[in-house]
Amino acid sequence: MDVTFLGTGAGMPSKTRNTSSMILNLRNEGEDYWMFDCGEATQHQLLHTSIKPSKINRIFITHLHGDHIFGLPGFLSSRSFLGGDTPLTIYGPAGLEAWLTLTMQTTKTYIPYPIQYEIIEDGAVIDFPKFRVSIRKLAHVIDSYGYRVEEKERSGTLLIEEALKRGVPRGPLLSQLKNGQDIVLANGTLVKSEEVTTARQRGRVVTILGDTSYTKASVELAHEADLLIHEATFDDATSTIAKQYGHATIREAAQVAREAGVKHLLVTHISARFMKHDLPTFLAQGEAVFSPISIAEDFMTVDVPLYINNTTV
Amino acid sequence: MDVTFLGTGAGMPSKTRNTSSMILNLRNEGEDYWMFDCGEATQHQLLHTSIKPSKINRIFITHLHGDHIFGLPGFLSSRSFLGGDTPLTIYGPAGLEAWLTLTMQTTKTYIPYPIQYEIIEDGAVIDFPKFRVSIRKLAHVIDSYGYRVEEKERSGTLLIEEALKRGVPRGPLLSQLKNGQDIVLANGTLVKSEEVTTARQRGRVVTILGDTSYTKASVELAHEADLLIHEATFDDATSTIAKQYGHATIREAAQVAREAGVKHLLVTHISARFMKHDLPTFLAQGEAVFSPISIAEDFMTVDVPLYINNTTV
Repeated sequence: MDVTFLGTGAGMPSKTRNTSSMILNLRNEGEDYWMFDCGEATQHQLLHTSIKPSKINRIFITHLHGDHIFGLPGFLSSRSFLGGDTPLTIYGPAGLEAWLTLTMQTTKTYIPYPIQYEIIEDGAVIDFPKFRVSIRKLAHVIDSYGYRVEEKERSGTLLIEEALKRGVPRGPLLSQLKNGQDIVLANGTLVKSEEVTTARQRGRVVTILGDTSYTKASVELAHEADLLIHEATFDDATSTIAKQYGHATIREAAQVAREAGVKHLLVTHISARFMKHDLPTFLAQGEAVFSPISIAEDFMTVDVPLYINNTTV
Repeated sequence: MDVTFLGTGAGMPSKTRNTSSMILNLRNEGEDYWMFDCGEATQHQLLHTSIKPSKINRIFITHLHGDHIFGLPGFLSSRSFLGGDTPLTIYGPAGLEAWLTLTMQTTKTYIPYPIQYEIIEDGAVIDFPKFRVSIRKLAHVIDSYGYRVEEKERSGTLLIEEALKRGVPRGPLLSQLKNGQDIVLANGTLVKSEEVTTARQRGRVVTILGDTSYTKASVELAHEADLLIHEATFDDATSTIAKQYGHATIREAAQVAREAGVKHLLVTHISARFMKHDLPTFLAQGEAVFSPISIAEDFMTVDVPLYINNTTV
């Protein structure tokens, strides 16, 4: 489980930061790649990674501003050009399907794989076999949403020697024990799952927010998350502009992280006004409130570890 | 007068060739920059040039395939972000305005400068003060158009010593002579413009075609052009695919150049299947029919010189 940033800039591309997109890699967790937002030239950024468009099976759009969706038409076209024939589901605010449909009609683009559109709403929860995604509306100049991606509790590891010692035969009974079921052997012996497995582990939580100023909904979505990805378009000196355009300063992002008790804050959607040499000062404004904070860069990949007692395992 | 290629690939971006776009620089000829096509990430390519979006005042779209227009929404947004407040005219097939209007509505993008849409048609001629643009429909799987950009005849240079020798006073009479008018001096002497100016020069012609297979309309549009920009998506070995998708091989592009009697052929829209080491063979197939041919590369700038008796001046 890791996150790769494809675009970490705000509003417009710059030479170093593309417009918004990131990939949540769930391939070790029984899912595929999930994309969050798709700014213009996201498909170009993917060319410089090992992530194949055909392996992206879900796209979550936070809001309909152009710097978060103008890459969708090209990405969807190229996904088929590059051999993608598996279904794709796109989650986003109402309006996305109508726009993409007219776009494909206008450009006579035929997409051979099925696309399912799901309109997101405040308070919705999407249930997947191994994940639960909760959605909240944030505070921006247009409807903007945040996603809490929660891995379901993971079964413990089977202690095979313990099971064999109790007379469990090799075969399907071992799987049942591993999956949390107690079993009764042919000789009448009860073997409890907890006797022959390590403790069940809580799943990891990563919270990915769309553009927003400080809001309680963010705190709720990020509650004790292992990783919070929050925008930080502005800094203390530009906090008035931040408010005006419904964006956050890095201090506000840190405030959310602190109140939510998250393990690690990653800030993205950084205004092009901040040069590389401005970043230490920028970061310090956030760190006055919360740490650890990292500033996302294009092509950065960040692991989402499981924290137990504040230590990663 | 020169052409800068921003994207020279076909269908999809690759690491070396972006999707279609080029800029015709007419800033020394009393116009601004004219953009031809605007594939995704054209605004990203512009970041690596000295061309400011605000200085582009006309965009000519050849056809509505995504690899030629998916960069428009982002370009139009960023043009205003970057301070562009001057009018923009977009020429293209019907359907463009409806798509861009829905795109801007969906993304709540406000464009502060006026955009005028002009629907192009086969046989249309657009008259500008110093240029004439003729449009023809080509042969592609959807309506695709070519543009012949013809500079109007240029007045000769004033031979100032000759004028003074004939008694013409410094001042407005000199301008009249330069602009081709004969004058009569206060003492009754007739001074003819042709006595005191060099010969008038024909204007330059550059023909820029959309995606197309070989067609007579291309030959007509390119008649004796100083520069012909023709697609060459495929080669001899892939000529069947070329036909199927309404594209040209480099040999067909060369055939057009030869029949039209152009001075220089530049091929673009090169399939990503051709690697750098394939290009000499690719080029040779065209050169068997016509020369000189150049293969366009992203960020290449090509001068459009005036040819007199096959020599550039």
